[in-house]
Amino acid sequence: MHTIVDFTIVPIGVGVSLSKYIAACERVLAESGLTYELHANGTNLEGEWDDVFTAIRRCHEILHAMGIPRLHTDVKLGTRTDKTQHMADKIASVRQKLNDRD
Amino acid sequence: MHTIVDFTIVPIGVGVSLSKYIAACERVLAESGLTYELHANGTNLEGEWDDVFTAIRRCHEILHAMGIPRLHTDVKLGTRTDKTQHMADKIASVRQKLNDRD
Amino acid sequence: MHTIVDFTIVPIGVGVSLSKYIAACERVLAESGLTYELHANGTNLEGEWDDVFTAIRRCHEILHAMGIPRLHTDVKLGTRTDKTQHMADKIASVRQKLNDRD
Amino acid sequence: MHTIVDFTIVPIGVGVSLSKYIAACERVLAESGLTYELHANGTNLEGEWDDVFTAIRRCHEILHAMGIPRLHTDVKLGTRTDKTQHMADKIASVRQKLNDRD
Repeated sequence: MHTIVDFTIVPIGVGVSLSKYIAACERVLAESGLTYELHANGTNLEGEWDDVFTAIRRCHEILHAMGIPRLHTDVKLGTRTDKTQHMADKIASVRQKLNDRD
Repeated sequence: MHTIVDFTIVPIGVGVSLSKYIAACERVLAESGLTYELHANGTNLEGEWDDVFTAIRRCHEILHAMGIPRLHTDVKLGTRTDKTQHMADKIASVRQKLNDRD
Repeated sequence: MHTIVDFTIVPIGVGVSLSKYIAACERVLAESGLTYELHANGTNLEGEWDDVFTAIRRCHEILHAMGIPRLHTDVKLGTRTDKTQHMADKIASVRQKLNDRD
Repeated sequence: MHTIVDFTIVPIGVGVSLSKYIAACERVLAESGLTYELHANGTNLEGEWDDVFTAIRRCHEILHAMGIPRLHTDVKLGTRTDKTQHMADKIASVRQKLNDRD
């Protein structure tokens, strides 16, 4: 089952500067071979369900190994059976609707 | 890796009455053997990472098999290495703090 | 516009024991007069849109005043025009579907 | 209080093609004067707390007026008192950490 996901990992108990931990997770994603894209409040990711959640679990494992005692993560995800859709399709579809009216 | 999760599945494209689909997912959870509890806006669930995400994936599979073409799901999850914690502990801890001040 | 909300506030930069901060937010909700209920991963809350988001903003203000430098909050919310619905209705509706099949 | 937000609106009960509704909400944001950016799974938005939640409420009002009977929305938000931060800063900070190690 293919899924398109947005997720945000929030390290707890290691101060307020979190970008180095987000960078460590981005490296996990780079090694995963999945399609992903960082944005201002999280990371978009797509692939097979098990591959996606294995990658996110791997981020948790790496971050705990860096000394973070507690992690909070938000995931928003979608699956559909009516058509095959990728991340780029979703943005293109909204942009087309915006242009249609202009 | 143990995780405590809150998740909400939103069926899309099958009208506005969604409770029968939520009930179908609750039956999946009952069969999973995991600890779970329905609340007004989702379901709390805890267990090993892979068991938890297999159960949520199974909910997606069952709901798509019921004819839902598109599903949106939110997951909030926590992992920690500093101590073992269960769902009931989290509520008890807040309640104790509320009582301490009273 | 009436809304039913689930929210979770995650204090960042103040260690891993967060329940006293959650308790402080619960006191804000108690004073708000809104209907709310703590669960293992957040708090359910309902009321008029502006009242709900004023209460959540007030939680942020109180927690920052307690010395928390950074807060991450998740909110899941629903609005509907087809019928009036309250938090208790949502749970009752799922429970009825579960019983119907038994 | 300044906040940086990610939100996703999920229209329920109007089929599976949702991009025209997302486009309608983007127009609301364009008129709001707030800084925002569409991504594959939602929209990033920043500004004063009340302005941000007024804009999201306005999206709900517009979408209900287009005939959507039920809406589910996810919001992830951050506030901080230790420094002023904007959306672009967050991405730049992670990218710098990625480059530092390369």
